[in-house]
Amino acid sequence: MIITLMDDAPAATVADLLATAAALGLPARSLAYDDGGTVVGVDGSLPGDLAGLPGVADIREAHKPYMLASREHRQRTVVRVGDVAIGGDEPVVMAGPCVVEGRDELIEAARAVKAAGATILRGGAYKPRTSPYAFQGLGELGLRHLAEAREVTGLPVVTEVLEPDQVELVAGYADMLQIGSRNMQNYPLLRRAGSAGRPVLLKRGFSSTVEEWLMAAEYILAHGNPNVVLCERGIRGFDPAFRFNLDLNAVPMLKELTHLPVVVDPSHGTGRRSLVTRMAMAGIASGADGLIVEVHPEPNRAKCDGAQTITPGELLAICQRVDAIAALTRLDSASVEQVMAVA
Amino acid sequence: MIITLMDDAPAATVADLLATAAALGLPARSLAYDDGGTVVGVDGSLPGDLAGLPGVADIREAHKPYMLASREHRQRTVVRVGDVAIGGDEPVVMAGPCVVEGRDELIEAARAVKAAGATILRGGAYKPRTSPYAFQGLGELGLRHLAEAREVTGLPVVTEVLEPDQVELVAGYADMLQIGSRNMQNYPLLRRAGSAGRPVLLKRGFSSTVEEWLMAAEYILAHGNPNVVLCERGIRGFDPAFRFNLDLNAVPMLKELTHLPVVVDPSHGTGRRSLVTRMAMAGIASGADGLIVEVHPEPNRAKCDGAQTITPGELLAICQRVDAIAALTRLDSASVEQVMAVA
Amino acid sequence: MIITLMDDAPAATVADLLATAAALGLPARSLAYDDGGTVVGVDGSLPGDLAGLPGVADIREAHKPYMLASREHRQRTVVRVGDVAIGGDEPVVMAGPCVVEGRDELIEAARAVKAAGATILRGGAYKPRTSPYAFQGLGELGLRHLAEAREVTGLPVVTEVLEPDQVELVAGYADMLQIGSRNMQNYPLLRRAGSAGRPVLLKRGFSSTVEEWLMAAEYILAHGNPNVVLCERGIRGFDPAFRFNLDLNAVPMLKELTHLPVVVDPSHGTGRRSLVTRMAMAGIASGADGLIVEVHPEPNRAKCDGAQTITPGELLAICQRVDAIAALTRLDSASVEQVMAVA
Amino acid sequence: MIITLMDDAPAATVADLLATAAALGLPARSLAYDDGGTVVGVDGSLPGDLAGLPGVADIREAHKPYMLASREHRQRTVVRVGDVAIGGDEPVVMAGPCVVEGRDELIEAARAVKAAGATILRGGAYKPRTSPYAFQGLGELGLRHLAEAREVTGLPVVTEVLEPDQVELVAGYADMLQIGSRNMQNYPLLRRAGSAGRPVLLKRGFSSTVEEWLMAAEYILAHGNPNVVLCERGIRGFDPAFRFNLDLNAVPMLKELTHLPVVVDPSHGTGRRSLVTRMAMAGIASGADGLIVEVHPEPNRAKCDGAQTITPGELLAICQRVDAIAALTRLDSASVEQVMAVA
Repeated sequence: MIITLMDDAPAATVADLLATAAALGLPARSLAYDDGGTVVGVDGSLPGDLAGLPGVADIREAHKPYMLASREHRQRTVVRVGDVAIGGDEPVVMAGPCVVEGRDELIEAARAVKAAGATILRGGAYKPRTSPYAFQGLGELGLRHLAEAREVTGLPVVTEVLEPDQVELVAGYADMLQIGSRNMQNYPLLRRAGSAGRPVLLKRGFSSTVEEWLMAAEYILAHGNPNVVLCERGIRGFDPAFRFNLDLNAVPMLKELTHLPVVVDPSHGTGRRSLVTRMAMAGIASGADGLIVEVHPEPNRAKCDGAQTITPGELLAICQRVDAIAALTRLDSASVEQVMAVA
Repeated sequence: MIITLMDDAPAATVADLLATAAALGLPARSLAYDDGGTVVGVDGSLPGDLAGLPGVADIREAHKPYMLASREHRQRTVVRVGDVAIGGDEPVVMAGPCVVEGRDELIEAARAVKAAGATILRGGAYKPRTSPYAFQGLGELGLRHLAEAREVTGLPVVTEVLEPDQVELVAGYADMLQIGSRNMQNYPLLRRAGSAGRPVLLKRGFSSTVEEWLMAAEYILAHGNPNVVLCERGIRGFDPAFRFNLDLNAVPMLKELTHLPVVVDPSHGTGRRSLVTRMAMAGIASGADGLIVEVHPEPNRAKCDGAQTITPGELLAICQRVDAIAALTRLDSASVEQVMAVA
Repeated sequence: MIITLMDDAPAATVADLLATAAALGLPARSLAYDDGGTVVGVDGSLPGDLAGLPGVADIREAHKPYMLASREHRQRTVVRVGDVAIGGDEPVVMAGPCVVEGRDELIEAARAVKAAGATILRGGAYKPRTSPYAFQGLGELGLRHLAEAREVTGLPVVTEVLEPDQVELVAGYADMLQIGSRNMQNYPLLRRAGSAGRPVLLKRGFSSTVEEWLMAAEYILAHGNPNVVLCERGIRGFDPAFRFNLDLNAVPMLKELTHLPVVVDPSHGTGRRSLVTRMAMAGIASGADGLIVEVHPEPNRAKCDGAQTITPGELLAICQRVDAIAALTRLDSASVEQVMAVA
Repeated sequence: MIITLMDDAPAATVADLLATAAALGLPARSLAYDDGGTVVGVDGSLPGDLAGLPGVADIREAHKPYMLASREHRQRTVVRVGDVAIGGDEPVVMAGPCVVEGRDELIEAARAVKAAGATILRGGAYKPRTSPYAFQGLGELGLRHLAEAREVTGLPVVTEVLEPDQVELVAGYADMLQIGSRNMQNYPLLRRAGSAGRPVLLKRGFSSTVEEWLMAAEYILAHGNPNVVLCERGIRGFDPAFRFNLDLNAVPMLKELTHLPVVVDPSHGTGRRSLVTRMAMAGIASGADGLIVEVHPEPNRAKCDGAQTITPGELLAICQRVDAIAALTRLDSASVEQVMAVA
């Protein structure tokens, strides 16, 4: 049962609903959105005249299993990272190196991606690596470099967190927490991210269904954090020509199912530098709210993922087009007129 | 070994090369392009001073296994279907019903898709159906309806051929032969399509790698037909939310590997009407030369594939945008200026 | 609707049922089994007192879409190939080279596999090859060699047929027709195989679901041929370490769903010689009625598929065990006692 | 570089090697096996006359990336769980309910699986659930029940650990730690499991390649724990008829690649109760060292995974056969004679 409350609903209504659910042994969660409005999800059905409670706007008996993430009670959520809005009318480009390699290198990269048009800086301080012998990132030193790059460039920062105990530390430096593909179903980590007080970029598990992904987002929402951005980053397939298959079908599908913003990672989603620009543009055309791209001043010298990393110049070509692509592919009558004018 | 000949190369050179290969027991094929130029592919290495033969422009020892389809000897091929050019600067939209249901219904649909902006009519007369009890198409009667719809609307026609013995019959009515996903590795059919004298739309097997797909195209080219258009139509994946996963990564990948045009089928590639428009636009943004879309005046009454069929109105929204998307996503400096002007 | 008839049902009953279905426009098929018994499948529901018709044994309203292949009307079908029974109590081993290379080589291989314990000879005369430049088999000459090897060794022969027009020719030489993985949904070929008068080995499409596979078998049954053996030969997966993933889950699943025998191909199903013996034994333990294995006196010199081909010595190790494994894994009380005695 | 030491090698040799590697900036790890013998893995090449160091038995320059897990330096490791040996000559059966439901229910189940022939008890105290609203296990109370069931039945206990901070707690109760499929690449958890002092059951990620899986094992070994058992539990596929595809190809493949024992989980690997017994037997025939099976006295009343849970009676049928199947499928000459005697 999804119960949507009015913006001015009394706190007592939420408390009542949760108490009733608790008395019946039904799992239940409330979630307050940053722009006002609260929703209560109950895994089951509450009895009585709920519509008569003060501040209740809507009651839905049948719904998706991801009650809080579902679009059934809310059109869209705009997630703010620093002063950047993800999920609004303009696509957002996050960019930066795979891994933070050093202070100066990071600041150089940050300046370059900002100049190309990116508005959020990405970079890994803690890296999940397939091999225990590979470089695992600079750790907290990397976080400090990220914070310094933010000070220098003004770009808010997103970086990955690998385990529950790191959440507080990373949240102390970063503007947004990234949960990686391999950790999409790391439930203790999702729970902790739910109470981190920072927006979360939740990457899709590379063999997760869209429903499993939304259930993972639900863990974060159910623990109090409404600011989740979903990131399609490629799924595993049978063709060795590609590291992963960027699954753009998932983008418009998610737009039907959830109010959360969706961004696309064409770097991991292709694994191949020459495909990144095209697939970035295709991602925006599919309806994504933004991109996250691996960029390095010299991709061939990158400490990790060089084969899928583009240059700032290539990023510029993307950034120059994303607003226009978003405008042209918007499906309302105004955009059609704009299209006609352009075409 | 790939040997490229000049446009004015004497016929004797081709004959010489093939004879030398035959004497050595090496498989070899020549292919003449419609716009001039001939290529000879030899599965092995010919001895002697080939460069000294009259008309030899280029010799390549190391190459892809799909010698004739490879971009290693030719930038791009423009395939003409009636008076429509696929693979030129403007994207082409093919549209029509899944299956030809009747004469009047087809003509109505053909008019509707033409009005919406499509320039090639699609429709199945022979349908491969999973069940032996399902409607298998009207057969030759369907072909006659297609020919009549062409007369009425002026749209050239593409339709599927299922077996080698049908090739001549279908080629007698249709402007382009479609080889479906299930038949991508039906080699007797590919061979026959190689000598059909009609351009061929070759759909990707739904679990075929890009290399296997190009090898299938190679069969058609090796049997004398240079006019092959590749169609990405979705691959099989693990998420039951989608009938198939439209693999747009394949589009820019193919643009690196082959000179053949590439189109995208967002209908089969999603299996879901609500995703078709978005993925059609994403397909063009990924670099495709065109689209093939299932359209029906009343999708809910379509005899087959209704769940993935859009209306003429939805097709209009796609057609209104494809030229602009193609222009905006073209990656040369002129297009950047155009983008800047638009943005 | 599935209508099962008694062995002594009058022919008129079948004719009546088919006529009624035809009058209603419902697709309908009858199938007579070699060991007696006839079934009528109607894609829809016939009215009237069918149970009162002479010879009607059972009527089933709700059923699987593959009516004739379904186990809902029949426990099991034993398919006879020459004097070998597939689907009886003892597992059958078919073995031989990937491709017929020459008369003497084939006879040598046939003798070797017979000595090792195989009872059916396999070998390709027409080979579907990914590349148009690869060896495509000896064609009819290969068929003649197969027939000669049968005369010499007494082993019945199974070989692949690639297109509808080949069916009659191949059926003239072979005891069993093989339809390969790439042709599982080649419906014109399936139809022709339905009237070929020979048992058919139907390999699973390498990305086909079990239901699609049974629907493909249904095409053959619906065209009059009850003697279909299903062959699990591996499905496509994401791990480049394996050519295919042998999907043994499908074996016990099929045993629940169909009355047709099931065999396992551990050669294609692994793509790797060192795994073949183990997976052959696992296939029998999973409940398969037999195996089809690529064997060559000198695998490293085989003209095709050498990497997955085993020696006659390795085949011997398999054949020595299959009966015992089948007996030990049978799940009735007698076999438990036998197990206890052994253990 | 893999350097194998003799059993009586002086500790100084290991220290020397690690120090040399450290001085060169090369990642390096030593691992001591429980039955004697030490191996040193260096991610790179050490200079000098290593063979001349006291106690060095073997040096390997070229090797797999999973140096410690690789079979290149060791034939096999037998992992002891309580007094049960996994990886020896006899297959081991672990069984029990999906989740610990209560003290009495667990003890009843433990007695039942012991009576049927299982020698290790499985049961989840902490459960990773797709939904935040689903029952997440009894937590530490569940661990206490497991310890009590061990006392009552004498069966050692394996149970899942979900996060690094839980490792110590779970290791305090359990005889073996299970790392689940979703956590196979949870590197902080793998590291902690490396120093837990307990054997680890490492389930395969449901879309992980065999190499990624061995790299995950390598994390545990590289952190000091040689006692890792690999568990094949099914991979994600395209056929909705199966929850997962049990990938038995992986079993003989692993036997070539690693010295670690391998067990098979036919419960998750099929998702369907009716397939479990057959696939358990096939798993043993493929060469597995054991099984882990979900068993519940009343599967239909199980709190989780009932659809894939078998009864103690079905478990008995499996246990009665595993020793005989293992003996019959062993590929040495003695077993052939035994086979012949049986057959």
